[in-house]
This record gives sequence, structure tokens and C-alpha cells, in this order.
Amino acid sequence: MPAINKYLVVVDLGGTKILSAVLDKQTQIVSIAKKPTRSKNKNEPVTNRITDVIEESISSANLSLEDIDGIVLGIPGSLNPETKIVNLAPNLGWKNFDITKNLQKHFNKEIIIENDANLGTLGIYHFETKGKCKNLIAIFVGTGIGAGIIIDSKIYRGKNFSAGEIGHIKINENGYKCGCGKYGCLESEASRTAITRMVNEQIKKGKKTIITKLTDNTKLIKSSILKEAIKKKDKVAINSVKYAAEKLGVITGNLINTFDFDCVFFAGGVMEAIGNFMLPIIKKKAKETALKSNFKNTKIILSTLKDEAAIFGGFALYKSS
Amino acid sequence: MPAINKYLVVVDLGGTKILSAVLDKQTQIVSIAKKPTRSKNKNEPVTNRITDVIEESISSANLSLEDIDGIVLGIPGSLNPETKIVNLAPNLGWKNFDITKNLQKHFNKEIIIENDANLGTLGIYHFETKGKCKNLIAIFVGTGIGAGIIIDSKIYRGKNFSAGEIGHIKINENGYKCGCGKYGCLESEASRTAITRMVNEQIKKGKKTIITKLTDNTKLIKSSILKEAIKKKDKVAINSVKYAAEKLGVITGNLINTFDFDCVFFAGGVMEAIGNFMLPIIKKKAKETALKSNFKNTKIILSTLKDEAAIFGGFALYKSS
Repeated sequence: MPAINKYLVVVDLGGTKILSAVLDKQTQIVSIAKKPTRSKNKNEPVTNRITDVIEESISSANLSLEDIDGIVLGIPGSLNPETKIVNLAPNLGWKNFDITKNLQKHFNKEIIIENDANLGTLGIYHFETKGKCKNLIAIFVGTGIGAGIIIDSKIYRGKNFSAGEIGHIKINENGYKCGCGKYGCLESEASRTAITRMVNEQIKKGKKTIITKLTDNTKLIKSSILKEAIKKKDKVAINSVKYAAEKLGVITGNLINTFDFDCVFFAGGVMEAIGNFMLPIIKKKAKETALKSNFKNTKIILSTLKDEAAIFGGFALYKSS
Repeated sequence: MPAINKYLVVVDLGGTKILSAVLDKQTQIVSIAKKPTRSKNKNEPVTNRITDVIEESISSANLSLEDIDGIVLGIPGSLNPETKIVNLAPNLGWKNFDITKNLQKHFNKEIIIENDANLGTLGIYHFETKGKCKNLIAIFVGTGIGAGIIIDSKIYRGKNFSAGEIGHIKINENGYKCGCGKYGCLESEASRTAITRMVNEQIKKGKKTIITKLTDNTKLIKSSILKEAIKKKDKVAINSVKYAAEKLGVITGNLINTFDFDCVFFAGGVMEAIGNFMLPIIKKKAKETALKSNFKNTKIILSTLKDEAAIFGGFALYKSS
């Protein structure tokens, strides 16, 4: 079990930004550095940018590499934490990629990799439930939909380290095409991408919406725009978000029927922005869907942790690995 | 941990029959006794009949009560194995019932109770996979649909001991009414009850089927009748069973996306009779539904254990409890 004697670096590798945090052994975040994932120089490999952000976070904490015990990387994709090979990370363009090789050479530290949803879930489990929800699922709703699962107080990974792909639960056999190539996945019916599609369908039909005034580009509607539109009681926004929340509610009920979880957490960009609007709809639909015996005492909760969920999760993982 | 020095009794309490088996410490079944669950005398409590069957199985093994180390009861309902209270067993008419109280007084032995699907799943895990499928779900298809789940080699029960209620996963928001009172549950679309309904709908529409010749009562079509009809290439039977298998296949794919299981087993009365016909359809639909990353190496298997799954599961549970 690697000890944290001095400081730990946790990196959250997103499709849009790379975030590196330095934590002390009391889990205090002492510095944070960020950089866009994509470089203006297309030939610069992502790994160089990761190295840069890590170094920036260390120096902005007035520390040097000697003060760092290890590095944890949260990666948006499927990976094997044992062999440290990233099988597939579509947003980073990685396939069967040994991410630690270069970083190991450069930093010469213990490096641990983990799926980003799993890290976020560990953060929620340890720092939001304080280890009390021994069986939980954390559902991350953003551009896509993913989840992390805790069973018996441990992250549950599955045989291919691919558990939690709830974005690809088929909920509508005649549904829209999903990014995965299949049709009617939860992700293609309830993610921000799906909400954006629904809004545009209504605009096409001639429905008026304030969204066209709030953004020039309705093809990429940010969660903050949806928040603003809902606040202004915009029907097009409300209808689309309500549809997504209802689908998430049915899935939540189905997950409770199957796994009789202690807690279901909602997190991610969409939930941070409009979770307060969506959660009551999700809860209502989940209650309608789940058996009374299973729904009893299940907590359905909006996570209050944002970026720090994965950071704290990295800390917990490093300590326990 | 209770030892099995001599013999163990495992009782499988079904809605139609009570089965009691005596096993020696090498897991050999040395005797079996059966009785219908319902007595002709309506005033006779089920517990009396359980006592009778247990005693019959012991005496038909030429043993006496002194030779028995303990008793395991598999119960079709939700229960708490710690308090030994059956919360709800609709087919037995039990609600918040302390089943062990009377039996304890009568037999004065260690008595363990467990949900019947969990027992069957433990049997499959220990005696069919030999402990190799560390994360598995066993789906039981009969009059209803239920499941047992093994995570990290242990039975997974959930916070209300109600995990595995996959029969009540909502798969069709506009579907038929289920026994649970909700609509469009897997059980109301893919169980023997659902297949029976589909067959009768087709008969009503004037479709010809051999089933009307194979049974006088099409309102209660046994799995053996379905088997016979499929063998004779009866279109009404084939269409109905195919529909059910496709729904089971989608759910299997969704479960694999969520839990990345090592193995998915199918068991229960319907599967014993027509699993060979259904399994290829289930597999095809599951493959279409699951992500490649998750479907990789998942085994979807027809269990070869029948009644003995729960019996062997009881043995494994007693040894490990």
C-alpha cells in the first residue's frame, strides 16, 4: 500500500481540459493547474501537455518533484488498471496505449490509472457519503452518460474493467443513433447531446425558444444556457430536459430493482447546472418504476462535489491501492 | 461457521411444491421428499407441511434427527437472512413472518433462510462454474422472472435483501400490467405467463395453433406444451417465445453493459424446457445490445442444474455462513 508521506498529484484528463491537483496528506488541495486537452499545435502529443500541467501544478504549490509521492490519472475511457494499458479513450484518440510509460520515465514516480467515472465515484463514496453508502451507483450526465459502481465499499470494475456503461443501456428500440453505433441508448435519449437534438428538432418545427437568443450556436447548447432557459420558463428547454429526466428516472428505478442500492448519486456537467430541476422528475419516475420493497430507503442524491470528486477519488484510490 | 459433520437438510419451498433433500458432507444427495405446497385441508398451515416433508426426507434416508446438523430453507420471497423474518412471500401468503420460530422449536437445529433465487445462484456458482465466474447473474425464467447475483464470489443481496428483481425492470412504458401492479415489466413481457398471454391473443385473432390440441386449458400453458409446439414448428408458439427471448436478450445486453459480468446463466422451468430454442435468440440480441468492450468474453449459458441448483446452493451457503 503506497503511503502518502508528502504530496500526491491527481490528474483529471477530460475531453476538453486537463486538470492537475496537488494534495497534501490531509486531503487538502494545495494547488490546481488546468490546460485545454487539445493543443493549437496538432503535432504536440497529449502526453506532453499532461507532463506540463502536472509540472505547473507542482511548481504553483511551491513544491518540487521530490515532494511528490505518486501520480493518479483519471482517464475517460476503458483501461486496465493492472497492466496500465488504456484500451480505448475515444476523446483522447488512444487505443491500446501505455500512458504510464512516458510519464514514468519523466517523473520516476508510482503512477496509478483509473477510469474517470470510477475516480469520481470513489470521491463521492469516501468524501460525500463518508463511506456510509456501501452499495452505490454514481451517474454522470454530461455530453455523454456514464457511471461508477461501489459494491461492498469497493469500486466494482467487471471482467473487462468496463462496468458502469449505463449510457449504452438500450431504452428505446426505435430510438436515435448513439455515438456507439447502436440505436436508442440512454445516452442518445438523455445526455446533453440528446437534449440539444430535441431542442433543435423543436426549433425546426417552428417552436419559439429563448435559446436562439442566448446562443449563436444551437448545435452545441451548453448546460449553462439550458439553466438560463429553464429559469426563464422556456417551454422548448423544459420539455426536452423533462424528457431526459424521465428516461433517467426509469433507468434509476430499473437499477434499484436490480441492485437494491443504498444510494444513487447524480453528478456531471448537466447535473451541476440543472440537477435541481431534473432531480424531482428523476425521483418521481424512479419511484413509479421501482418495487416498493427495493425503493424503500434508497437515497437519490445530487452530488455536491464537482471537479473535486475525481481528485478526492484519486487520493482515496492511491491510499488503498 | 457451522460445520457439516453428518448430514444437512435443504428445503426448496416453491409456490407449487415443497422439496426437502438430505445431503451428506460430500454434497451427495442421499434422499429427497416432495409434497404439494397447498394442502387439501385449507386450515393446515404451510409450516406443518414443511415439517412433514423434512421428516419424510430424513426417514427415507434411514436417518434420525440426531444425524442432522442443520436446515436451510429456500423461500420464494423477500426476507432478511439475519433476523430470519420473511418480509413478503406472496405465493405462500406470508408477510413479516418468522418462519424459523416453529421449526426451531420442533427440530432444535441451526436454521438458515435464503431467497430461493439466491440459493439457486449459489448452486450454479459453486457447482456449475466451480467458483470460476466471480461476477455472475443467474436469470430464472418461469411463471415469473427473478435473478440472483454473485459479485466477487459472494451472493449480493442489496440494502433491503431485494437485489435481483429483474422481472420488474420496466422495458415497455406502454406494456401490459404486471403482477406487481406496474406496467411493462420484463416479467409481463417475457415470462411463461407473458408467453401464455401472447398465445391466447393470437388464438383470439383466429390464428391456428397446435396448442389448442395439446392442452384443454390454454389459460395455463405448461413449458412442456410449448416445447412440444415448437418441436412441431407451431408458428403461434414460436412467435410468442421468440418475442420473450428477444426481450430477455435486450435485458441481458443491458446487464452486461452495466455490470460487465463474467457469466450470465439462464435457468428455471421455461429454460429447462425450451432454453435450447431461446438461448441463440437471447445471445444474438444481447450481442446487438451490449458494447463490444463489455460483451467480450461474457459467457451466456443455459444451466444444466435443475431442482438441485437450490439444494447445492443451500449446502454452499450453510458451509460458508
